[in-house]
Amino acid sequence: MTAPSFAERLSARQTDTTSLVCIGLDPDLQRLPHHLTREKNAAQAVIAFNRAIIEATADTAAAYKLNLAFFEALGAESWGVLQATLGAIPETVPVIADGKRGDIGNSARLYAHTCFDLLDFDACTVSGYMGKDSVAPFLDYPGRGVFLLARTSNPGGSDFQEIEYQGRPFYEHVVRTALAWEKPGNNRAKGSLGFVAGASDIEALRRIRALAPDSPLLIPGVGAQGGNSNDVLKAIREGSGPVLVNSSRAILYASAGRDFDRAARQAAGTLRASLAPALS
Amino acid sequence: MTAPSFAERLSARQTDTTSLVCIGLDPDLQRLPHHLTREKNAAQAVIAFNRAIIEATADTAAAYKLNLAFFEALGAESWGVLQATLGAIPETVPVIADGKRGDIGNSARLYAHTCFDLLDFDACTVSGYMGKDSVAPFLDYPGRGVFLLARTSNPGGSDFQEIEYQGRPFYEHVVRTALAWEKPGNNRAKGSLGFVAGASDIEALRRIRALAPDSPLLIPGVGAQGGNSNDVLKAIREGSGPVLVNSSRAILYASAGRDFDRAARQAAGTLRASLAPALS
Repeated sequence: MTAPSFAERLSARQTDTTSLVCIGLDPDLQRLPHHLTREKNAAQAVIAFNRAIIEATADTAAAYKLNLAFFEALGAESWGVLQATLGAIPETVPVIADGKRGDIGNSARLYAHTCFDLLDFDACTVSGYMGKDSVAPFLDYPGRGVFLLARTSNPGGSDFQEIEYQGRPFYEHVVRTALAWEKPGNNRAKGSLGFVAGASDIEALRRIRALAPDSPLLIPGVGAQGGNSNDVLKAIREGSGPVLVNSSRAILYASAGRDFDRAARQAAGTLRASLAPALS
Repeated sequence: MTAPSFAERLSARQTDTTSLVCIGLDPDLQRLPHHLTREKNAAQAVIAFNRAIIEATADTAAAYKLNLAFFEALGAESWGVLQATLGAIPETVPVIADGKRGDIGNSARLYAHTCFDLLDFDACTVSGYMGKDSVAPFLDYPGRGVFLLARTSNPGGSDFQEIEYQGRPFYEHVVRTALAWEKPGNNRAKGSLGFVAGASDIEALRRIRALAPDSPLLIPGVGAQGGNSNDVLKAIREGSGPVLVNSSRAILYASAGRDFDRAARQAAGTLRASLAPALS
C-alpha cells in the first residue's frame, strides 16, 4: 500500500469541506486592522492576525497558501512568525509555501528541504525557467506537491508566457515539458506535479486544464485581480484533478475593523458557495 | 550630481582589485571543514567558515554572492547568520543576494525591500518568467543592481532558455525585452539591470554580451561546472559592462582541512589571474 499522493490528499480535503477555496495569507502590515498594529509589534500583530483569520476560516478553507515575501519582510522574526502561523493551521488542511523558488540542482534540493523537511509544508510554488533539475528535487518528496508556474495572473504574465512557440503559447510548452518529468520512467509519483494558472486569462486556464486534466491546479486572480468564479467553473469542467481557487486580499481585508475575522469568514464562505458546483 | 549606478560601482571595484572574481558563498554543512562542524553548532560553524573565507579573500574578490538557499536551510538561525556574514564583508565590496525571486508586483516589492532596505545587499538575482512587474520593483532602487536570469549554467538551463523564438533562442528574447524596461522613458536608471549568463554555454554568453554590451554580467559555471576562463575572456571581449565570474565550490572547498582559508585564497587568486587580461 502506498501513501496517498498530494493530489489525493487535496481531493479528500475538498470533499470533506465542499470547498475549492485556498486562502492566501499575505499579511501586509499596511493593511492589518489598526487595533492590532497599535497594540503589538509587527511580528506579534501578524501572528495575531493570521491566527484569527485561520480560526475563522479553517472549516471553509480547502487549503492555505503562505506568501513567503510577506514573512521574509519581517526579518529576524520571520521564521518564528512562519512557525506560529503553521502551528495554528489544523493538521488536516494542506498548506502551500508560495515562494516561487527555482535554482540549480543543489540549491533546489536545499529549498525543498527547508520547505518540506524543516517547515513541513504540503506543497510549494516553483518557477521553471531553469528547467528540469530546478524542479525535480521538489518532486522527490512523496505525498508533497509542486505548483509550477504556467500562466500567472499578473499584468506581466503575458510578457513571456504568451509568446508563440511551435504554434502554441509558451506556457503550454512549459506544461507539456513538465508533465514528461513526472512519467513513470522518471521515477516520480503521479499526483505531485500541479500548475499555477490564473483566472485573469480564462482561455489559458482552459488549455492548461485540457493538457493536464489530472493535475492539481492553483488558480489565483479571482476577486481583486478581476477573475470570476463562473468563468473558472466553465474552464475546469473537464478533468478530474483537484483545483484550488486562491483568494488573498479579498478575504483577509474584507474589513479593516475589529470584525475582520468574521468578515473574512463571510467572504470565504461566499467564494466557497460560488465554486461549490464544481464538487457536485 | 547623481549617485553612481550599480554598474559604475562594480566597475570601480574591479579596477581597484584588478579582479573579475565573484566568490559565491554557498556554505554547505556537508562540506564544511570537520574541525568547524565538530566544535560548533550549525549556525556558528557557518559564520566561522564565512568569516574566515571573507577575511582570506576580501582583497581578491570583486564581489561576493550569497546563495540564499544555503542560509534559509539554517531555519530560525538563518537571519542571524545572514547578518553576521554581511557584517564581515568590507563596505567597499558589492554583495549579491542570490535568491532568484520573481513574483507579482506587490510581492516583488516586498522581496526588494527585504533585500535592499533590510539586508542592504547591493544587487540580487531575479527570475523573469512573470514579466515586467515582477522585475521592475527591483530596478526602482537607485545604485542597486539586478541580475536577471538569461542563460543559466545548469543542465536544465537548455530546457526552456534555448527554444527558438522568432529565429533566435528564447534567452535572447528575455534580454531584449528586459533592456526595454530600463529605457529612459520607463524612468529607470541605466546601470541597474544586468544578466546571468553561464560559462557552460559560451555561444550564449557571446550573444548576450553582444545584445547588452554595457550591462553587468554575472557568469557562473567556471570551474566545477566545466567552463573555463579563456573561453569567457574571448566571449566578453567586446562590450564595456562590468563582468563578474562567479566561483563557489572550487574556492570554498579547495581544502577540507584547517588550511581551507589559505587554499580558498589561493584558488581565488588563480582565478583572478586567469581573468586579469579582461581588465588591461
